[in-house]
Amino acid sequence: MASRKPIGVLDSGFGGLTVVGELIRQLPQENIIYVGDNQRCPYGSRDPEEVRRFLFEIMDFLVEQDVKMIIIACNTATAAGLEAAHQRYSVPVIGVITPGSRAAISATKSGRVGVIGTDVTIQSDAYRREMHRINPRLDVVNRACPPFVRLVEEDIAESEEAREMIATYLQPMQKENIDTLILGCTHYPLLAPMIGGVMGESVQLINSAEETAREASTVLSVIHKLSDQNPHPDYQFYTTGDPEWFAAVGSRWLKRPIRVDSVTLGDSDTV
Amino acid sequence: MASRKPIGVLDSGFGGLTVVGELIRQLPQENIIYVGDNQRCPYGSRDPEEVRRFLFEIMDFLVEQDVKMIIIACNTATAAGLEAAHQRYSVPVIGVITPGSRAAISATKSGRVGVIGTDVTIQSDAYRREMHRINPRLDVVNRACPPFVRLVEEDIAESEEAREMIATYLQPMQKENIDTLILGCTHYPLLAPMIGGVMGESVQLINSAEETAREASTVLSVIHKLSDQNPHPDYQFYTTGDPEWFAAVGSRWLKRPIRVDSVTLGDSDTV
Repeated sequence: MASRKPIGVLDSGFGGLTVVGELIRQLPQENIIYVGDNQRCPYGSRDPEEVRRFLFEIMDFLVEQDVKMIIIACNTATAAGLEAAHQRYSVPVIGVITPGSRAAISATKSGRVGVIGTDVTIQSDAYRREMHRINPRLDVVNRACPPFVRLVEEDIAESEEAREMIATYLQPMQKENIDTLILGCTHYPLLAPMIGGVMGESVQLINSAEETAREASTVLSVIHKLSDQNPHPDYQFYTTGDPEWFAAVGSRWLKRPIRVDSVTLGDSDTV
Repeated sequence: MASRKPIGVLDSGFGGLTVVGELIRQLPQENIIYVGDNQRCPYGSRDPEEVRRFLFEIMDFLVEQDVKMIIIACNTATAAGLEAAHQRYSVPVIGVITPGSRAAISATKSGRVGVIGTDVTIQSDAYRREMHRINPRLDVVNRACPPFVRLVEEDIAESEEAREMIATYLQPMQKENIDTLILGCTHYPLLAPMIGGVMGESVQLINSAEETAREASTVLSVIHKLSDQNPHPDYQFYTTGDPEWFAAVGSRWLKRPIRVDSVTLGDSDTV
């Protein structure tokens, strides 16, 4: 009634590491394999068909590693390929959009929920559709904040420039009278203190990385595949890009040294 | 990929209505059937074997009503019979202890979590065991608060007597340096404002009713049985006790008029 097979986590690059950080915190007995497709990152401007092809290449690799579950820790890939992945794979697959949506439904008292994310995520309207599938009465306010990812990638999340940019982008959201705000991008949890400061204490922030890890916990419970008695779990990272660069950035994000190997997927070495 | 079959919810009496309230809020398209075993309430002082027999009588009745999931919205019955229920029934079954435990694991930053509940729940140590199954490193502090249920049942949750009693019982907990407190009894959400006032803003309260409804949402998603396009769901209540009394109390708890029928289960008419 327990399984020590690893959980597979994938992203176009580094963003999914916030989900890994939450898995380590909430499920400290689980082994994890991560794939970052840094060579072909970002996915956001690509055709959904192409994103699905990349997604399946990574998922095929993870299935070969005998994972017990796959987490698509990337909003773009979730929006483009989660449904198709459910059809194609027998291993349980979860994305990042449903957990954040469900947490917001639970958290909101007023029924007015904000969502911030990249252009692609906001244009897909995936969070609103997911929330309305469960509760059609919610008011959902979307706002794209494309430059936020750069603040994290360039490690200036706590700078004055970041504070000003976040304040500017969230100004319209402040007038919307929401009580819950979904951080609909895996990079945004690293900006949470500053976003919270701008939105004020009356607005609850939903960290989709935290919620995705929690939903993974629920699903593993239901299928009786939580790991146990594994005090020293194994974390293995793969990148289609430069392993040294991934190790440098990933160690900073996760606040621990990490082991990174190179992986070649499809045509990832030529794109 | 959707099901309008009802969710079955059961409790020894009224306590499970907090879970029903959260199901109505978070899953407003779901039909619900509730059974309160008021005639044989409370379960807390009974032999676990007897509690399991009562539990199975109610669950047999709910299965006859063709429910798609059963929620054991009672800490005592969850502790006594959840595992056996998983073995005996093919319908998905969830209790109230795992969702609250998982939410606390997600919420705590310091790793120090408090649990309050009835004598039976605290003596069973079920929350600590459940949390340690997932994360053995957490510090869990238990505290039984037996008179709290009466404050709710007698509708004096906002009285000066309640405030004093809650302050007295939580005094040891205030010294434990916890950052998260599980309300480990289905009655306690009705005391949440006062408990929050005593514990202060630095302690996050985990409402097990809210978390159980959310976990039900996750499980129904995973098995593709969420209801949709059901704007006027049906709520049917059964009690082994007096239906008029149940309707009076239940309507007050749920802040809406409810329809209640009598049900006879096993020897519930003679006990």
